[in-house]
Amino acid sequence: MELLDKLRWRYAAKAMNGQKVTQEKVDNILEAAILAPTSSGLQPFEIMVVTNQEIKEKIRAIGWNQSVITDCSHLLVFAAWDTYTAERINTMFDLTNEQRGGTNEGWENYRQMLLSTYPQRDPQVNFEHAARQAYIAFSQAIAAAAFEAVDSTPIEGFDPDELDKILNLREKGLRSCVILPIGYRDAENDWLVNLVKVRKSKEDMITLID
Amino acid sequence: MELLDKLRWRYAAKAMNGQKVTQEKVDNILEAAILAPTSSGLQPFEIMVVTNQEIKEKIRAIGWNQSVITDCSHLLVFAAWDTYTAERINTMFDLTNEQRGGTNEGWENYRQMLLSTYPQRDPQVNFEHAARQAYIAFSQAIAAAAFEAVDSTPIEGFDPDELDKILNLREKGLRSCVILPIGYRDAENDWLVNLVKVRKSKEDMITLID
Repeated sequence: MELLDKLRWRYAAKAMNGQKVTQEKVDNILEAAILAPTSSGLQPFEIMVVTNQEIKEKIRAIGWNQSVITDCSHLLVFAAWDTYTAERINTMFDLTNEQRGGTNEGWENYRQMLLSTYPQRDPQVNFEHAARQAYIAFSQAIAAAAFEAVDSTPIEGFDPDELDKILNLREKGLRSCVILPIGYRDAENDWLVNLVKVRKSKEDMITLID
Repeated sequence: MELLDKLRWRYAAKAMNGQKVTQEKVDNILEAAILAPTSSGLQPFEIMVVTNQEIKEKIRAIGWNQSVITDCSHLLVFAAWDTYTAERINTMFDLTNEQRGGTNEGWENYRQMLLSTYPQRDPQVNFEHAARQAYIAFSQAIAAAAFEAVDSTPIEGFDPDELDKILNLREKGLRSCVILPIGYRDAENDWLVNLVKVRKSKEDMITLID
């Protein structure tokens, strides 16, 4: 299967060469992220696409000094909602009604169910839930990048509070959760590029219950 | 891009027809999940593949009675590690050394850094972190299913504690976090199949920082 070939090809590049990814490919990677399914369709996250070199330098400084943060083409920052609010929930349900041209009782009951549970919950619980949805999109972006033969490096190793400050995310009700530099590998300077991709065996990962 | 076409085609089927997915396609979907990148390469989750109809019925009963849970071909249950332990971390680092035929100081220092931080943390923090990694795999499984023209329905709407009991997951140090029935849509009985796929606009989801 062609997608599997691409997923086998990909790895977390540890050095990139600064080469730019075309706008068409960037758009495709972002569209894959937007198309990702999310719980109740709420899409509780946003993506910051950083190409400004000074800001990339600032992020590298709070990102374990990883060179791919500055040497990538585009740095994708996945930022989840800090909590669920009635306004956020209503915005998505209203958009759905608008795009589908109408509504129905089941859908409106579902809206009320969310409104009566999500906004009242502990914001940390809501953020953790929203972050999981962001990870679904993050993963589809990784797969789409691989499909476009674009390298990407999933990174959790950064200080999220500092990144939130650099990008003013808290003011927007967002919290950074994971970042993804995309670009092209610098094979000569990447210690990982020629090492075997290690994965546990199917026997260790999968249990059949039949 | 072909992958985008498949991602546009997919939707969360709300009715399935019981048709079996071929073993080859199931294997490809599972391989995509196993190939997914995870934090420090730990792959902190397992996947239960349920085809037993009685067990699917039990899961449906604690899964908001959603018909796709029983009418799917294979029900994938993503179960994350309940916490990180020294044994689990060492197993993965040892496997990496074995597959790469050696080790080095940087890698062993990294192992020690994880051993000195992860096992001591609050298990709930560790589980939340492991669950995010499971979601990366879950998302790659969704993308791979779409690529194989197999329907899938991402489901968080179930009682995880009850599911853990049905599958004896806690005894294995696992906690269910999300499930994915895969199979084929029953278009005549699916209220969602002909509705527009609703996604926020690129303008609402993406901010360019250049």
